[in-house]
Amino acid sequence: MTRRIVVVGGDATGMSAANTALRHGGSASYEVVVLECGHYTSYSACGIPYWIAGDVTERDDLIARAPEQHREAGIDLRMRTEVTAVDLDKQVVSFRAVDGDGQDGELEYDDLVLATGARPIRPPLDGIDAEGIFGVQSLEDGEAILDDLTGRDLRRAVVVGAGYIGVEMAEAMLRRGLEVTVVDQAPEPFTQVDPDMGALVREAMEGMGMTVLTGTPVEGFDVGDDGRVRAVRTGDATLPADVVVLGLGVRPNVSLASEAGLTIGESGGIATDVRMRCVGHGNVWAGGDCVQTHHRLSGRGVAIALGTHANKHGRIIGTNLAGGYGAFPGVIGTAISKVCSLEIGRTGLGEAEATAAGFAYVTATIESSNVAGYLPGAEMMTVKVLAEQRSGRLLGAQIVGRANAAKRIDVFATAIWNGMGAEEMTFMDLSYAPPFSPVWDAVLVAARKATKAVEADSPASPA
Amino acid sequence: MTRRIVVVGGDATGMSAANTALRHGGSASYEVVVLECGHYTSYSACGIPYWIAGDVTERDDLIARAPEQHREAGIDLRMRTEVTAVDLDKQVVSFRAVDGDGQDGELEYDDLVLATGARPIRPPLDGIDAEGIFGVQSLEDGEAILDDLTGRDLRRAVVVGAGYIGVEMAEAMLRRGLEVTVVDQAPEPFTQVDPDMGALVREAMEGMGMTVLTGTPVEGFDVGDDGRVRAVRTGDATLPADVVVLGLGVRPNVSLASEAGLTIGESGGIATDVRMRCVGHGNVWAGGDCVQTHHRLSGRGVAIALGTHANKHGRIIGTNLAGGYGAFPGVIGTAISKVCSLEIGRTGLGEAEATAAGFAYVTATIESSNVAGYLPGAEMMTVKVLAEQRSGRLLGAQIVGRANAAKRIDVFATAIWNGMGAEEMTFMDLSYAPPFSPVWDAVLVAARKATKAVEADSPASPA
Repeated sequence: MTRRIVVVGGDATGMSAANTALRHGGSASYEVVVLECGHYTSYSACGIPYWIAGDVTERDDLIARAPEQHREAGIDLRMRTEVTAVDLDKQVVSFRAVDGDGQDGELEYDDLVLATGARPIRPPLDGIDAEGIFGVQSLEDGEAILDDLTGRDLRRAVVVGAGYIGVEMAEAMLRRGLEVTVVDQAPEPFTQVDPDMGALVREAMEGMGMTVLTGTPVEGFDVGDDGRVRAVRTGDATLPADVVVLGLGVRPNVSLASEAGLTIGESGGIATDVRMRCVGHGNVWAGGDCVQTHHRLSGRGVAIALGTHANKHGRIIGTNLAGGYGAFPGVIGTAISKVCSLEIGRTGLGEAEATAAGFAYVTATIESSNVAGYLPGAEMMTVKVLAEQRSGRLLGAQIVGRANAAKRIDVFATAIWNGMGAEEMTFMDLSYAPPFSPVWDAVLVAARKATKAVEADSPASPA
Repeated sequence: MTRRIVVVGGDATGMSAANTALRHGGSASYEVVVLECGHYTSYSACGIPYWIAGDVTERDDLIARAPEQHREAGIDLRMRTEVTAVDLDKQVVSFRAVDGDGQDGELEYDDLVLATGARPIRPPLDGIDAEGIFGVQSLEDGEAILDDLTGRDLRRAVVVGAGYIGVEMAEAMLRRGLEVTVVDQAPEPFTQVDPDMGALVREAMEGMGMTVLTGTPVEGFDVGDDGRVRAVRTGDATLPADVVVLGLGVRPNVSLASEAGLTIGESGGIATDVRMRCVGHGNVWAGGDCVQTHHRLSGRGVAIALGTHANKHGRIIGTNLAGGYGAFPGVIGTAISKVCSLEIGRTGLGEAEATAAGFAYVTATIESSNVAGYLPGAEMMTVKVLAEQRSGRLLGAQIVGRANAAKRIDVFATAIWNGMGAEEMTFMDLSYAPPFSPVWDAVLVAARKATKAVEADSPASPA
């Protein structure tokens, strides 16, 4: 008997689940229907800043697989089709044609996969719907920005929010020749790293010619008679703006799940078990930006919107749908970004996160070069490590540097994933040759300093 | 009471041990005497190819700390002083002045540190002592090569041996404008990786304009009337050569230890316990290129000459000398190299090593790009993984690629160090952003393919 799998959302998680299930299970066993409300499938949202910057010339380069390719693989893919409701008891989804020229209807499912992604945060500020103010979430957003920038004489860009998308879009605007101001309410940019590391990011961004205004909440936008944004208003000032980019982060898109009565976790994402089954519903699966995942260090539920998790979730769901066993092992908050030549990496817990999780910890910060110091082009990076008091277990690491700096965060990620202590890490057998690192790689130097900090700091247990 | 520590050898291990002991123990507790037969202390032998190539312009740039700096730190450093014998019962070393103008004599010790390094392999081939044939071990070697190359019109360089030093010196000679031929008796160059990966290295070297002759043992050297090398003779051919570089690897320099009666391990290096104490002698320590270390995967003793191990050994010895506790956790054979734009990394066991250690294993080889495929400058790398049959435990990994490829070996090194399986690694939280990797990083793709290979290959246990 053929089981029908209905997938809501045709991006990373949804299409990966659909393809994996079909590949392992076969189309004789499964009928896979994917309902996608947008125009595109399987695209790289993370690539949009590089498209705006001009590194990527064609929109289609950001599309890993077009609808036709999915259909050729045997998937019944229905584009511009929005799912409006799920009835978990009847096992039915209701959908409508977004453009009005398709069919509305209902569809029964044996298994349901929710891959509804995330929604950009868009505070209800005065003037936020003016022309010239853009989000950066979908390929449609990217097209709108490019259309707006092309053939106009825009001089001043203001980027609201100095997180991943914010700094990457700031680079894109700078490289397109605009004057760039980045505004954020936090004390330092890039709050994914601690403020002391964020200060290094600020310095570097200022060195690139950007204006960075932190501790500065945006209060609204001045709009011209033509309906176009003219300026960004903060408490302190009015910043003239020809174009504004919003990079305020995203929230899990759980309205469908929530209305259907599925459990939403403390982080705001759909709660699932390790196999990505929605709590209490063995035939309803969810993954990607819309779910809550387990943080291996804090033990808490977190919602982290990232293509790499979304792809893994999709594969795990697909494996399970096809009768295999797949379990998602959780996350540790690894991330990486680049602003022009500046590289930023982080993994594990930052100081505020470690404190919130209840850890007592020490920190160690070091500077080291990316290659042997005597080679031309050697550049310094700063590495900060958090280790648990007494045990010395690694809790987090952050790197800010230039070329070949930030990808080293994966070594910390792997060490933290495995519960390593700072001391053991210090003597780990990592690669060395002069064009790749000093004889003590930066990560080892940082681990060594963290070991000393643990030794110096740890109080004895009370008697 | 002041204890006297006598250190034989003033490079990485010896000076690191001396400095660590003094820093932790204090000069009131310890008198530290270092005897070094050469002209230099604490230099980067690994940097010599980059000095020859011209990246490093001053010899002194390769010296991390000059003799005066060590003396200022309180070390009684005696240069050009060769230790000729050790009497373990009397706790006395005998030494002689190399240049004949110093003092010969004897010195009692409370603790002895042997850091005698390695000796380059130099087979007794016909003509090997001719002018124009160079090793690449010491700064003196580097000076000799540079003197020879400077102001002469040399056209053809032959490099004998296609290991680390061989390929790095081949690059250096190529960049100095010489025609380069690399000769090795093995079937493919760079036997630190498996032959299938070595074939990629060969292709790349040939693409750079080098001639690579493998399966070709060198039988001798033709020498001109002026005493200078003219050609390299192999079984098949006579290769004209204006200059010859020997890159045949090194062996632990254990003559002093051996004559003193210390235990030499199966690998040819001095046998020590985990604290780097020579077997059966609680006050005799050894580290660096002259010792045998424990391979964490094979469980066997290996001798690996590498500055990173040497520095770690020195620090551990110094910590122990000062009354602390330091233990060397062993190695897993991690290494990295570069030939022009080609990067090569390896960790764990290669196929021959895995077989010799008794493992049954599967392999998986994948190609992936160094950054998101849609970005300009994306370049492919090849990643090979060995995983144990049935258990799926990672046993080894090898990477051959271009920019930003080989340092990924550290992720495998950290995973293998921690005994991870291929399947768990597949879902590990590594960093992702388009300028740093595809959404599935190459190491995850390789782990995924290895997982499938384990599933497909593993035979059931006999009933």
